[in-house]
Amino acid sequence: MPSISKKGLHMPESPIRKLVPYAEKAHKEGKTVYYLNIGQPDIKTPSIALDAVKIHSLDILAYSRSEGSEDYRKKIANYYKKNDIEVTSDNIIVTTGGSEALLFAFGSIMDHDDEIIIPEPFYANYNGFSVASGVNVVPVISKIEDNFALPPIEEFEKHITSKTKAILICNPGNPTGYLYSKEEIKKLASIVKKYDLFLIADEVYREFVYDGISHYSILQESGLEQHAIVIDSVSKRYSMCGARIGYLVSKNKEFMRTALKFAQARLSPPTLAQIASEAALETPQGYFDEVREEYVKRRDLLIEELEKIPGVKVGKPKGAFYCIAELPVKNTDDFARWLLESFNYENNTVMVAPAAGFYSTPGVGLNQIRIAYVLNEDSLRIAVKTIAEALKIYKD
Amino acid sequence: MPSISKKGLHMPESPIRKLVPYAEKAHKEGKTVYYLNIGQPDIKTPSIALDAVKIHSLDILAYSRSEGSEDYRKKIANYYKKNDIEVTSDNIIVTTGGSEALLFAFGSIMDHDDEIIIPEPFYANYNGFSVASGVNVVPVISKIEDNFALPPIEEFEKHITSKTKAILICNPGNPTGYLYSKEEIKKLASIVKKYDLFLIADEVYREFVYDGISHYSILQESGLEQHAIVIDSVSKRYSMCGARIGYLVSKNKEFMRTALKFAQARLSPPTLAQIASEAALETPQGYFDEVREEYVKRRDLLIEELEKIPGVKVGKPKGAFYCIAELPVKNTDDFARWLLESFNYENNTVMVAPAAGFYSTPGVGLNQIRIAYVLNEDSLRIAVKTIAEALKIYKD
Repeated sequence: MPSISKKGLHMPESPIRKLVPYAEKAHKEGKTVYYLNIGQPDIKTPSIALDAVKIHSLDILAYSRSEGSEDYRKKIANYYKKNDIEVTSDNIIVTTGGSEALLFAFGSIMDHDDEIIIPEPFYANYNGFSVASGVNVVPVISKIEDNFALPPIEEFEKHITSKTKAILICNPGNPTGYLYSKEEIKKLASIVKKYDLFLIADEVYREFVYDGISHYSILQESGLEQHAIVIDSVSKRYSMCGARIGYLVSKNKEFMRTALKFAQARLSPPTLAQIASEAALETPQGYFDEVREEYVKRRDLLIEELEKIPGVKVGKPKGAFYCIAELPVKNTDDFARWLLESFNYENNTVMVAPAAGFYSTPGVGLNQIRIAYVLNEDSLRIAVKTIAEALKIYKD
Repeated sequence: MPSISKKGLHMPESPIRKLVPYAEKAHKEGKTVYYLNIGQPDIKTPSIALDAVKIHSLDILAYSRSEGSEDYRKKIANYYKKNDIEVTSDNIIVTTGGSEALLFAFGSIMDHDDEIIIPEPFYANYNGFSVASGVNVVPVISKIEDNFALPPIEEFEKHITSKTKAILICNPGNPTGYLYSKEEIKKLASIVKKYDLFLIADEVYREFVYDGISHYSILQESGLEQHAIVIDSVSKRYSMCGARIGYLVSKNKEFMRTALKFAQARLSPPTLAQIASEAALETPQGYFDEVREEYVKRRDLLIEELEKIPGVKVGKPKGAFYCIAELPVKNTDDFARWLLESFNYENNTVMVAPAAGFYSTPGVGLNQIRIAYVLNEDSLRIAVKTIAEALKIYKD
């Protein structure tokens, strides 16, 4: 029998996936399962986007240009302009989700065994894209005590070797909800300039920023033009995760020429989803204001209720719709499974994401979970109450 | 300035892309350009597929399952059953085009520097996917004199090393139009079994088979279950290239478990396109019969007219909608550019794909072009006439 690759063996499984059978079993047993584990919002997609594909007049569902249609990219550039980011359509490649934008970026700047530094905890799939690209993640730990702020810049310097090609951040962060300040971005800018590295910023949650703070994009930092690569996506912004449309944004021409070759090899991003995504750019500001207000209410409720539980520590998110909570248990993998398999409170149970999968350093984050506040307030209240009751009786 | 990767440098440019500016210039000068270079058919997408997205009732354009929806995969299995291929939904992962299916397959079975043997000429993007995956293509030359039949099995054996992990074929072939016989598939089966390799077959053109011959899939070859990986796609079958929906099909469970991890990392294939593609499975047989009849007429016209031109040699395609033609010129790169830049016949000119980009061996195929017969008969007639007139006066 032919054997699969080492890459395939090392490819991580989704940290959530292994819990799915237990959730299905709980559901079959008649329990109500509250899903705090996923980044699939319950917010409606703007109707302007959904309607756009209903009125299409295509005869042939043809390839688009590999970099996305010129019209669409011009409109995206305009979107950035409104957000005080000066880019042109030439600085944009439309990709199949932020995922593909990351893969193109990794392939364009890193070779086998090269290294990328990422503050952890980080979006679990960065591990997968690294394995797929044959490169190594070098983590720098950020701490719940510091609310997951940028680790000291010396921590980054300690890890830079001749194989280091880039630093990757997610801002605001999944899974931490942390929003980097202008000062932190400037610190990162100085280090990537000093060591001639790329700075990749996954800014897909840019619109989900709370408490009146503004998002500072790496594209706004002058002098960083040759280093900055932004990953963006329509998935969360317009609650259209299933579109699979993202963008790669950079002013580095050599990088963009290279990424375009990767884009050409896979021919084009999906055409119908581009129609919906182009229309989504016309979403009225009111939509975002409402969505932001909704997430702030959810976040405030979630944090308030979690902090009431004895022994629970929680980071205060300033953006995105996730938070990391530390629980008074040894291993949240076991706890998450136990919740689904053996526990209910008034016939409710909860599915959470064990946080170890968001760390690259073995043994770190074992007592943490990631909570996505993508449920309405009533559901969130029940879910947190369920966790509180569970912790009263859970034994490691 | 940070530098891009070696991978990025080696990533091939599309063999057609560099001609695009010349085609645009010819167009601006008022010439009529006949495009024989692309695989974007002029055939209409079945209305049942296009209509399906018009009547969707989605509120939230959500992620689908990473492997594609269960319903859709069951229907795909049913499609294969009708084509005498016994697979279940568990043997199918829905991908973002055949392109992504190839990337998942390469990643799941090959590590850095591993080797894949491919009879050349082959679909140019196999080079791109190999570079992106960090693996090496080992070509085995098939010849126009043999109509691009499978090279002798000893040629394959000569190239097998400890790094060889797979043989990849395209059946029927892009760019040759060659259809492998049952006997040829059996020969390949015996060699992959002997050396414990995977056999990957890109069967995206399976419905485009002419002259009453049947397509023999590697999935029909018994004893090959652990070796066979099929790449499939809706792009050409239903003339919906822009959907970006393909499938990975295999009965090797370990392989499928591994490929699913790659699929999970990128979350899901595009949802709207899955809706259209699922509906496309209901396309009436009459659609395919008409399309096949149309391509046969075009092929017959094309080959007949090409064979009339002095010094032109042409492979007789039995499937797909491409053929390779050898021209009495030294370098078709120069000729293709000259056609657009400096030639017209009755104000018409032609864009062809120089075939060198479909070979991995340097210096081979320099006097060949690939012609896609995706134009109607009248246009094809003018296009070939234009080539004939051009060859009368072209000087290397």
